[in-house]
Amino acid sequence: MVIVMQAGASPRQVEHVVQMVREMKLKEHVIVGTERTVVAVIGDDRQKDRTVFETVEGVERVVPILAPYKMASSEVKKERSIIPLRPNTSARLGGIKVGVIAGPCSVESKAQISEIAHAVKEAGAIGLRGGAFKPRSNPYSFQGIGEEGLKWLAEAREQTGLVIVTEVMAVEQIPAVAEHADVLQIGARNMQNFNLLMAVGQQPKPILLKRGLSATLEEFLLAAEYVMKHGNDQVLLCERGIRTYEDYVRNTLPLASVPELHRLTHLPVVVDPSHGTGKSHLVPDMCRAAVAAGADGLMVEVHNDPEHAWTDGAQSINPKQFEAMMKSIKRIAQAIDRDA
Amino acid sequence: MVIVMQAGASPRQVEHVVQMVREMKLKEHVIVGTERTVVAVIGDDRQKDRTVFETVEGVERVVPILAPYKMASSEVKKERSIIPLRPNTSARLGGIKVGVIAGPCSVESKAQISEIAHAVKEAGAIGLRGGAFKPRSNPYSFQGIGEEGLKWLAEAREQTGLVIVTEVMAVEQIPAVAEHADVLQIGARNMQNFNLLMAVGQQPKPILLKRGLSATLEEFLLAAEYVMKHGNDQVLLCERGIRTYEDYVRNTLPLASVPELHRLTHLPVVVDPSHGTGKSHLVPDMCRAAVAAGADGLMVEVHNDPEHAWTDGAQSINPKQFEAMMKSIKRIAQAIDRDA
Amino acid sequence: MVIVMQAGASPRQVEHVVQMVREMKLKEHVIVGTERTVVAVIGDDRQKDRTVFETVEGVERVVPILAPYKMASSEVKKERSIIPLRPNTSARLGGIKVGVIAGPCSVESKAQISEIAHAVKEAGAIGLRGGAFKPRSNPYSFQGIGEEGLKWLAEAREQTGLVIVTEVMAVEQIPAVAEHADVLQIGARNMQNFNLLMAVGQQPKPILLKRGLSATLEEFLLAAEYVMKHGNDQVLLCERGIRTYEDYVRNTLPLASVPELHRLTHLPVVVDPSHGTGKSHLVPDMCRAAVAAGADGLMVEVHNDPEHAWTDGAQSINPKQFEAMMKSIKRIAQAIDRDA
Amino acid sequence: MVIVMQAGASPRQVEHVVQMVREMKLKEHVIVGTERTVVAVIGDDRQKDRTVFETVEGVERVVPILAPYKMASSEVKKERSIIPLRPNTSARLGGIKVGVIAGPCSVESKAQISEIAHAVKEAGAIGLRGGAFKPRSNPYSFQGIGEEGLKWLAEAREQTGLVIVTEVMAVEQIPAVAEHADVLQIGARNMQNFNLLMAVGQQPKPILLKRGLSATLEEFLLAAEYVMKHGNDQVLLCERGIRTYEDYVRNTLPLASVPELHRLTHLPVVVDPSHGTGKSHLVPDMCRAAVAAGADGLMVEVHNDPEHAWTDGAQSINPKQFEAMMKSIKRIAQAIDRDA
Repeated sequence: MVIVMQAGASPRQVEHVVQMVREMKLKEHVIVGTERTVVAVIGDDRQKDRTVFETVEGVERVVPILAPYKMASSEVKKERSIIPLRPNTSARLGGIKVGVIAGPCSVESKAQISEIAHAVKEAGAIGLRGGAFKPRSNPYSFQGIGEEGLKWLAEAREQTGLVIVTEVMAVEQIPAVAEHADVLQIGARNMQNFNLLMAVGQQPKPILLKRGLSATLEEFLLAAEYVMKHGNDQVLLCERGIRTYEDYVRNTLPLASVPELHRLTHLPVVVDPSHGTGKSHLVPDMCRAAVAAGADGLMVEVHNDPEHAWTDGAQSINPKQFEAMMKSIKRIAQAIDRDA
Repeated sequence: MVIVMQAGASPRQVEHVVQMVREMKLKEHVIVGTERTVVAVIGDDRQKDRTVFETVEGVERVVPILAPYKMASSEVKKERSIIPLRPNTSARLGGIKVGVIAGPCSVESKAQISEIAHAVKEAGAIGLRGGAFKPRSNPYSFQGIGEEGLKWLAEAREQTGLVIVTEVMAVEQIPAVAEHADVLQIGARNMQNFNLLMAVGQQPKPILLKRGLSATLEEFLLAAEYVMKHGNDQVLLCERGIRTYEDYVRNTLPLASVPELHRLTHLPVVVDPSHGTGKSHLVPDMCRAAVAAGADGLMVEVHNDPEHAWTDGAQSINPKQFEAMMKSIKRIAQAIDRDA
Repeated sequence: MVIVMQAGASPRQVEHVVQMVREMKLKEHVIVGTERTVVAVIGDDRQKDRTVFETVEGVERVVPILAPYKMASSEVKKERSIIPLRPNTSARLGGIKVGVIAGPCSVESKAQISEIAHAVKEAGAIGLRGGAFKPRSNPYSFQGIGEEGLKWLAEAREQTGLVIVTEVMAVEQIPAVAEHADVLQIGARNMQNFNLLMAVGQQPKPILLKRGLSATLEEFLLAAEYVMKHGNDQVLLCERGIRTYEDYVRNTLPLASVPELHRLTHLPVVVDPSHGTGKSHLVPDMCRAAVAAGADGLMVEVHNDPEHAWTDGAQSINPKQFEAMMKSIKRIAQAIDRDA
Repeated sequence: MVIVMQAGASPRQVEHVVQMVREMKLKEHVIVGTERTVVAVIGDDRQKDRTVFETVEGVERVVPILAPYKMASSEVKKERSIIPLRPNTSARLGGIKVGVIAGPCSVESKAQISEIAHAVKEAGAIGLRGGAFKPRSNPYSFQGIGEEGLKWLAEAREQTGLVIVTEVMAVEQIPAVAEHADVLQIGARNMQNFNLLMAVGQQPKPILLKRGLSATLEEFLLAAEYVMKHGNDQVLLCERGIRTYEDYVRNTLPLASVPELHRLTHLPVVVDPSHGTGKSHLVPDMCRAAVAAGADGLMVEVHNDPEHAWTDGAQSINPKQFEAMMKSIKRIAQAIDRDA
């Protein structure tokens, strides 16, 4: 870190900062500038509370230099990670092929999930999404069909071979979800539910981690680090849009996070244009843009009857729209020497 | 809700929307304007997925009319709620007196918590805050001292009579926290941890619910509604700042939320200027501003040695600064015919 | 507009609102719901101050229904506009071909602008950008080379045939800029400089209008409407990123604005990934994503020696990177049945 | 500035950075850390384009250390500035007394402005606001009554002795506005209209500079610096709220900017809770909060008949509400040892 002293800080104040640095078992380098003195701190300060210096008299501010995550960092592991989604299959994310996970927001019935599974498989998806446990802002809204939905998802896998991706909302749901699903999804609202992150880090199935509604990339990677630190390095990062002042979308989808994450981390990056816009008419264009930006995968809400979807109808496309979109992203992927 | 049709929507499209409204057991009122047709929907649509209409051909957008929360709403309960913080004491929030809860970010030791408790009690606080379980963005940071810290807090209560407010991060921590604390705090990152909200709703101690980092007031009140719907109507709302583009603060503290919440809900509103700014030099002024804006309570981080605080030193004030602040907010409170 | 009354509004309060509506020469339609009364207002209220109802007792809020712009709206003109950039040439934006405008942030010297012009022309650009008048946040920064720079730009046009796009910052600069340039650029910071918008609306050359740093799409289209209302309907909309809490970029580039603008307006949409990210390493990927999202044009900062650029070096790519990018966007454009 | 090299940057890359620093006539200090090398740059780099280093191979990012403004900085002038608003009167801002400027959004008629002037004078205001030239997002909205309005304002001054504050939107309006007004207001949308800033810097009347809708404090102070650098150091900073995702207000009013600006600059700080909330029912509480936060002045929209205000009715309070608010802020001011 670099500690910037106020203009006019006294030598005694600088000395006090130096003492504090040494107490932390770090080394300092004092640089006297023309207008300000700066104390550069040498050593690994990731586990220190850097902000504490801001309370010290004479200190203007503290600038962190080292990124606080390690295992997720591309500095530690330079080659891109390829994450297998299910043992003994070719389904994976992070390689040359852009993989698409599609399905309804909520599992509604055995017939619904089966019908959609066949449709998205046909169009080229590698995974099936669908929520059995649903985090809902409104306590009066449908809260998910529960465990039975997990079984229907598993049956859809038997029928189609698709990888099953579904959300786990709470520590106590992990055994049931891990029994039936291939990939455990952590929702945006739980990105900093640290107890949940630690718990899914202690089981072996891959994690699809959604970016929080207003998370920085650093916070996002630190959430991944929580999972990795507890033993599970199979983490997929999912950009799903952020909250801004924009009002024509449910969320603003900042696609520059895709190349930036590829610079910062070795983990694969999936984009969810359904939540990332909240409007079905924007989804196909943003799927194309996400692939062009370099996304390793897409997560898309598809419903056989959006008008009667129990949840998120407004952002779901239908199987026919999905099929057309899949054809076009294949062409986009090839234009950047990938495949879909 | 009001469903706005696109300019040029066909009579058949309008008819289809009307059919959908009736299928939902609601009534419609079609208004043909000079440029657009609008379908006003009559009846309680709180439990319906209103956005589903946005997928329908010919629909431009959907405008909700009814607020989705009920129990938290000032329409249902007009008089302000006064929440007792501990049985058989006068400690309460929501009345004429502005109550202050103060203490360190983290419980560090028995001596630390006892010293700070005495200091803040002396200066006029009614409650003691301090985290034994700490949600930390960084998995390598100090994660809280755990259950022993809860006992030290309880001992500080024995010594001072202060009400104990401490965070519960996970469902499995509820029994221990509820045993020792008077008020259970739900942190900003858990504001939409719905399983946790439901669980604290099923126990009787008051809940201090922090606003999420980028929560709207509607989402904030829906989170309170989760707790209330499950049986616990003793909810304190805590404004702790929101994430914006501003970079001189850790969070932007939007104090207009105080009078707006007082308009929307009967629940008391507490302001946390420590997290709401992240900078100790801004805390006293923002405490004064919060009281002037009508806050029912304050939550303030106070540390006996901020330079060596294990967490959040940068936003902690010391007991001397706290004492001076308490004197001034008493004067501010009196200037608006309240007390502190 | 729809005026939502408070729960419990009295008949007299509703009557008062109805009176006000009639005073405005509009018609009302009162809908008594189960919990609230709503007053739907019929007629063109674009020129009325709708918010005035919010001061009236018993009114909860006002919901506008009609978009306030007309000439820019796709409801008024359904087919997409194709804007010729220079008479007697084929340079245009809005058709099947994605047009690229490239060049340095600032015009620095005759040699520099000439060298870059040749390089970008060679790689396939149709336009040359370069600022002679520079809006700078910092009064001590380089403020642009001034009128002489306009002449160098015009000379570069003679040499290459490229269309010249350059910024006009003030009403008094219009004659000089319009003399030398083909397209007048209005910068993001001037998007709501209404006097400037009116003035460029009164001259005939096309306008490239940049989206303001935190403009909504409605405000963006209203700014275009200012230009069009004063006589000039040759407006190109340029998405250049918005201000959010994200800190790894200078601006967040929200590409969903491209298909949304195509839905709302007939005007062409250009994307500027240089300002939209502020980081040269993100520019090529975001150029590709913008084209895939449906952009009609790109505006890209290219410098022959970014390390020594007088301004915006950090977001400029060099001619070699530009050439590679041009090749890849051509492939992307073809993948969506366009060309570049 | 501090230039942070990437992990693994080569000695040659570091050497190249050092060369560039020296070319800029600055000095460097290379610090080799355990994980990264950092180049600290010594000397005044305010006029250099610091971001240029970000294009250099091996550079991770650049951290500015020196604030780019000088004349506005509290480092250059330590005592707070007191700005006289009109010669030969006691009206001033920046001293112990909190001054209030009040009046309608728009000047509508001679009678209206006179009636409001008397009412706000009576209640204790020191200044009268009112727009004759109105920046409006919508080209079809009322654009201000023009020069005649300036005369009515001047007449109201004759009658009441109030200081006149009114907006100047364009360079060509300066002579007329400066002839009739005492203080020239630069609106939020013009905060970075640099030509206008330079022009008002060349005339002697005080400037009330509104913070831009999404301006950082640094950009705000740089805008003030533009005015000061061109000769006019009589600048009042006006916080009027910022754009965030919040939707119950027109803008989010971040009052921590008041004490932070007092730390960064010697210029007085005025708060405008009318634009800062956009809702008249929130204005009085936020006036109180602003004074408690340390504001040197308030700017408040007051209309004798808000329901029929031509503009901004929704955020205007009436004279009776204004009078009550003035009484309460006087008490708040006294509670912090000021006066109002």
